[in-house]
Amino acid sequence: SSLAPRLPSSSVTLFDAKKEKNLTFEAIAKKLGRDEVAVAALFYGQAMANAEDIKNLSDLLGIPADKLESQLAGHPDRGRTMDMPPKEPLIYRLYEIVQNYGYAYKAVLNEKFGDGIMSAISFSTNVKKETDDKGDWVVITLRGKWLPFTRF
Amino acid sequence: SSLAPRLPSSSVTLFDAKKEKNLTFEAIAKKLGRDEVAVAALFYGQAMANAEDIKNLSDLLGIPADKLESQLAGHPDRGRTMDMPPKEPLIYRLYEIVQNYGYAYKAVLNEKFGDGIMSAISFSTNVKKETDDKGDWVVITLRGKWLPFTRF
Amino acid sequence: SSLAPRLPSSSVTLFDAKKEKNLTFEAIAKKLGRDEVAVAALFYGQAMANAEDIKNLSDLLGIPADKLESQLAGHPDRGRTMDMPPKEPLIYRLYEIVQNYGYAYKAVLNEKFGDGIMSAISFSTNVKKETDDKGDWVVITLRGKWLPFTRF
Amino acid sequence: SSLAPRLPSSSVTLFDAKKEKNLTFEAIAKKLGRDEVAVAALFYGQAMANAEDIKNLSDLLGIPADKLESQLAGHPDRGRTMDMPPKEPLIYRLYEIVQNYGYAYKAVLNEKFGDGIMSAISFSTNVKKETDDKGDWVVITLRGKWLPFTRF
Amino acid sequence: SSLAPRLPSSSVTLFDAKKEKNLTFEAIAKKLGRDEVAVAALFYGQAMANAEDIKNLSDLLGIPADKLESQLAGHPDRGRTMDMPPKEPLIYRLYEIVQNYGYAYKAVLNEKFGDGIMSAISFSTNVKKETDDKGDWVVITLRGKWLPFTRF
Amino acid sequence: SSLAPRLPSSSVTLFDAKKEKNLTFEAIAKKLGRDEVAVAALFYGQAMANAEDIKNLSDLLGIPADKLESQLAGHPDRGRTMDMPPKEPLIYRLYEIVQNYGYAYKAVLNEKFGDGIMSAISFSTNVKKETDDKGDWVVITLRGKWLPFTRF
Amino acid sequence: SSLAPRLPSSSVTLFDAKKEKNLTFEAIAKKLGRDEVAVAALFYGQAMANAEDIKNLSDLLGIPADKLESQLAGHPDRGRTMDMPPKEPLIYRLYEIVQNYGYAYKAVLNEKFGDGIMSAISFSTNVKKETDDKGDWVVITLRGKWLPFTRF
Amino acid sequence: SSLAPRLPSSSVTLFDAKKEKNLTFEAIAKKLGRDEVAVAALFYGQAMANAEDIKNLSDLLGIPADKLESQLAGHPDRGRTMDMPPKEPLIYRLYEIVQNYGYAYKAVLNEKFGDGIMSAISFSTNVKKETDDKGDWVVITLRGKWLPFTRF
Amino acid sequence: SSLAPRLPSSSVTLFDAKKEKNLTFEAIAKKLGRDEVAVAALFYGQAMANAEDIKNLSDLLGIPADKLESQLAGHPDRGRTMDMPPKEPLIYRLYEIVQNYGYAYKAVLNEKFGDGIMSAISFSTNVKKETDDKGDWVVITLRGKWLPFTRF
Amino acid sequence: SSLAPRLPSSSVTLFDAKKEKNLTFEAIAKKLGRDEVAVAALFYGQAMANAEDIKNLSDLLGIPADKLESQLAGHPDRGRTMDMPPKEPLIYRLYEIVQNYGYAYKAVLNEKFGDGIMSAISFSTNVKKETDDKGDWVVITLRGKWLPFTRF
Repeated sequence: SSLAPRLPSSSVTLFDAKKEKNLTFEAIAKKLGRDEVAVAALFYGQAMANAEDIKNLSDLLGIPADKLESQLAGHPDRGRTMDMPPKEPLIYRLYEIVQNYGYAYKAVLNEKFGDGIMSAISFSTNVKKETDDKGDWVVITLRGKWLPFTRF
Repeated sequence: SSLAPRLPSSSVTLFDAKKEKNLTFEAIAKKLGRDEVAVAALFYGQAMANAEDIKNLSDLLGIPADKLESQLAGHPDRGRTMDMPPKEPLIYRLYEIVQNYGYAYKAVLNEKFGDGIMSAISFSTNVKKETDDKGDWVVITLRGKWLPFTRF
Repeated sequence: SSLAPRLPSSSVTLFDAKKEKNLTFEAIAKKLGRDEVAVAALFYGQAMANAEDIKNLSDLLGIPADKLESQLAGHPDRGRTMDMPPKEPLIYRLYEIVQNYGYAYKAVLNEKFGDGIMSAISFSTNVKKETDDKGDWVVITLRGKWLPFTRF
Repeated sequence: SSLAPRLPSSSVTLFDAKKEKNLTFEAIAKKLGRDEVAVAALFYGQAMANAEDIKNLSDLLGIPADKLESQLAGHPDRGRTMDMPPKEPLIYRLYEIVQNYGYAYKAVLNEKFGDGIMSAISFSTNVKKETDDKGDWVVITLRGKWLPFTRF
Repeated sequence: SSLAPRLPSSSVTLFDAKKEKNLTFEAIAKKLGRDEVAVAALFYGQAMANAEDIKNLSDLLGIPADKLESQLAGHPDRGRTMDMPPKEPLIYRLYEIVQNYGYAYKAVLNEKFGDGIMSAISFSTNVKKETDDKGDWVVITLRGKWLPFTRF
Repeated sequence: SSLAPRLPSSSVTLFDAKKEKNLTFEAIAKKLGRDEVAVAALFYGQAMANAEDIKNLSDLLGIPADKLESQLAGHPDRGRTMDMPPKEPLIYRLYEIVQNYGYAYKAVLNEKFGDGIMSAISFSTNVKKETDDKGDWVVITLRGKWLPFTRF
Repeated sequence: SSLAPRLPSSSVTLFDAKKEKNLTFEAIAKKLGRDEVAVAALFYGQAMANAEDIKNLSDLLGIPADKLESQLAGHPDRGRTMDMPPKEPLIYRLYEIVQNYGYAYKAVLNEKFGDGIMSAISFSTNVKKETDDKGDWVVITLRGKWLPFTRF
Repeated sequence: SSLAPRLPSSSVTLFDAKKEKNLTFEAIAKKLGRDEVAVAALFYGQAMANAEDIKNLSDLLGIPADKLESQLAGHPDRGRTMDMPPKEPLIYRLYEIVQNYGYAYKAVLNEKFGDGIMSAISFSTNVKKETDDKGDWVVITLRGKWLPFTRF
Repeated sequence: SSLAPRLPSSSVTLFDAKKEKNLTFEAIAKKLGRDEVAVAALFYGQAMANAEDIKNLSDLLGIPADKLESQLAGHPDRGRTMDMPPKEPLIYRLYEIVQNYGYAYKAVLNEKFGDGIMSAISFSTNVKKETDDKGDWVVITLRGKWLPFTRF
Repeated sequence: SSLAPRLPSSSVTLFDAKKEKNLTFEAIAKKLGRDEVAVAALFYGQAMANAEDIKNLSDLLGIPADKLESQLAGHPDRGRTMDMPPKEPLIYRLYEIVQNYGYAYKAVLNEKFGDGIMSAISFSTNVKKETDDKGDWVVITLRGKWLPFTRF
């Protein structure tokens, strides 16, 4: 019920239609041939839709294609959704992982790869559910290209 | 050369010895039977060492056990290493992933698991290197227990 | 009269009906079989309503069930209500308790439980009134599961 | 090993002696006739020691009384220990409880008590451990005097 | 002309009526049997109106009682009016007094009263005008109950 | 024991001597012919000492006059003692009064005096203790010159 | 085209009329017998208009006097126009002058005048244009009353 | 006595010598053929000394030329002295002038000069004292080159 | 789809027309005889349009000239578009370059030019695309007048 | 004279030797076969030195190789030098360019390259001086690899 107030207009259109059609991100992702995190990011204005995505979303969600095209035109203005530090408990936990393990990741990555960064652009991510006798576990995978600092 | 200024005294002891002995986190992790990210976190004062860890670190790094015991005694005062937002480019990229994909993760996780969070405490993480014809890739895995909000 | 401006639409619906029906949180909590703090949190969009809650709220408050269902659908986007530090004097006092006693709680809890945290998710809380010859006293109880840091 | 850097000099004296003597807060609290949270707060410079406390601490911890008296003289300059928001995961969880349930507490307290606040000064708190088949639970109790706003 | 944007709806109602009736806070305060600072605080949503206040305000300002009752119902959500540090020059001067003399007040109060605080809840304040040959002087009086820290 | 870390060197000298001589601000103020709040402010580097003050302080506190003169030379660099918002509970209460009643003071003062401010420079303040059957009360008086905005 | 969003309603009225009538601040200032910076400040809600100003503005700008009177009634709520640090390049340069030369001004003023401040209330300012062979120069003059700190 | 803690080492050298020799900025400025504000800025590390300045300062203040040369070598790292907003009351008043009159200056300057800024680099400033029957007045003059935005 | 919310009204007019006419900044820049970065800045309210620009924009984009004239009248109120630090990944990279190389630029520029700054007003910039066998490269050129600090 | 306080120890070693040997960044860059901005960045701990760089710096600056090796060992902890927003006027101008033209760069780059960013890692930069009859001009070139967002 409480969408973040700084979303683009496309978000309202998409979330309303998803609720109306009672579809999961998993189902939409399957249709689009994309990952469900990417689809959710697209819903929040954090990822770009190409022409085929728009057609598929229009078909699946019953939104007129031109309306969707108009609202999703242009390149995403990313990052506006979120106040940092995050107040949402689920998202804060991810932030806390960066806060606590940030230098540990850096130390290990520098050791393994040299001087550089993991790209957040040439990048993909997904989410899996595992269950064992202790309960359910979330497994988030981040995969990014290693970019060495240019020597100049 | 530029250790973060807010580290506990154990950090200086450990990093100096590691450099002196020319050991990788991978090698130390193998000896301790722990993950290399956990070991790096321990070096930065973000994870706890038990008695066996202290013994192993003492043996491997040639640090007197009582010195190490004294410096690593007590429970970590986590989170002080880092200014947020991170200024270090490598760590900023992780922060940016939370900023851009935070609500997408939440949407997908709520859909898959219900109302709750992924624990950052009942949690482990590791780093892998993959190489293909496009270059090197970093794969970071986050695995945390799903905690549903208590109904009360 | 002055509801916080960042509340979801369900909050307005619920608070208006509560005022109209002249009901206390205590009475509503009784009907829902939940704690009155949980009910107030639900009113502020900080806790989730299940199907039975929605039915009970609809009956008790005279709100059409489908309206309530639509406004309370989805998972709460928690934490947006509040600016931190809180400016509201009552809430600031709670914040001040964390500020002043935070490290004391940590020291005592680490001593009693080891390395970990008290969960704020696997968690419940309630409020009681006590009266003695010095006046009225508020007793707030926080009860959370102890989560030890995973060794990895 | 990693005491907060902004503690008064008494904190170092007290924590070093406690470690040397291998005493728990529980044991010290028993000796002083105070609660263990109050004792930990006193160690962090967040609570005041009276003459009897100083004598007891001197006896129990083997610290010369005049040294302790000199370091604990005057009134505490409270609140300096902590950066807010807290970066320490354990303390952050308490902060998060205020962030998420702050307005719920206010709503319930105003309903039960009228227009006022729960004092954080005319106040005591304690920590208990409970264990059931699901594991360990922390129970924190906050008890403060209700102060109605003066009508003027 | 420039009311603060975060005021409750009652503020607009009250200020408009006051302007319409061309009444001073002094006159309104006299009618209500309250201090003029308390009345101004009530206008800004920072103090509570009881039933008699509402009746008196309705009579004096010509506002329908039920409208006023509805807008002033509930307990004030205090503190939202103001950004801190204050940008308004008059209010900044008060803030500056706290900034410059805060520790001096604490030192003198601790000396006179022991370990505690002056309550801002069990509290009243008023404003007087004095005139001498140097010009006009503002005299603000703050009177609050001394609350000693509980020993626990 | 816990002097604020950003005090000028004179503060340490003065507070140590005051403790050594076991003198109250009241006694020192009497000797200097100044108010005790002004004296405490002088101790914290927030008020200026003239030649006579230095002589009196030297006599009373047994500090060599040239040392005092050297440390108190120049004009105070005011405001550095305090982080805002104040974390100290006693000082926070004063801050909260400004936060809650700031616009009320402005409204009443504008009504009584016109367009201007109360000076915090052409200003004096004092603290009194009152006791009645409800307990002790702090009375703080702020007295500042009214400065109308220049019309230009 | 881009008026700051936090201006009072009078600002829109005044700027629209000024544009309509194609008048400069210089011309309006001449008519009002005030300085053009004061007039611009009045347009931005940072200075007060007296009855004569309102009459003159009404005549000159063709705004009904009662509309203007209503919008300009009351005392300005100063300081809301601007975010600090200023993002506007022209205004940032003024801010930078304070940042870089602030202590230099203080040192020179304390030397020339003693312990005090330059009033920003008992204050006027103006802007002049000078031209020489190197180009145009802005000359801003700030003139404020010296206020010595009261000795108390 | 309370120099700002972030000053370069040259500041301590210069201020100590100035105090020792009991010289005013006015006298030093005369010797250097510079303005006294520029000299004070140089003392605070906010302006550059050329070879002649260094020689003159060495002569006048009795500081070995090579020591001064070494400490004043390089280009100033400006702006570090000051926390913004300024807490020092004198400097705050200048900041407040920018906050209140910033847009008024911009409006008048754009009208007089077009689209551009007043340079804070190609810039000089001075301070004068005026006295009339109302008391002393500070007159600060800011003179900067007008820089039009390049059309590109 | 997601224009920044703080843009002037002209931005909406211009971006809508550009999309409607399906024109690139490159094509518009050609028509106006300006650089495409300058044109984009004009669209975002960060650069000024002269009469000829308005005529050209009106012709090319099919916007009535008087509408455009009215919306683009006056001088830009620059800097409001952006929150700093930027959350948009593309813009953050530019910010990061300043963060990481800021002092390196200063050191090299001071060495090459002396004590001064590169103007951001007497300034132009452009963007080029280069392609080699490693992929595409962005080349941003910043060209600003060197302004030496005035000696005064 | 005023090195930034948060530099690694290598910075002091390098800057002192550079001053001692009276060498420019240009000369050092020539010896190292690197760009002078990269060399300055290396001095500030913002770029990495390889073995050959260390040998060359040791030879040229007369610093023992093992000292340099030890101080420059490991991977830079970038970004700590700078407070943002920058207070140094020269560096602020670069920050202001990002603030004012950030969205213009994004708009033009998205148009030219699609959805992605300019890398600040796979990146080089240099500084040139141009002189014409209007004076000296700084030309800063930023060259970074275009990274398209991965579609996933």
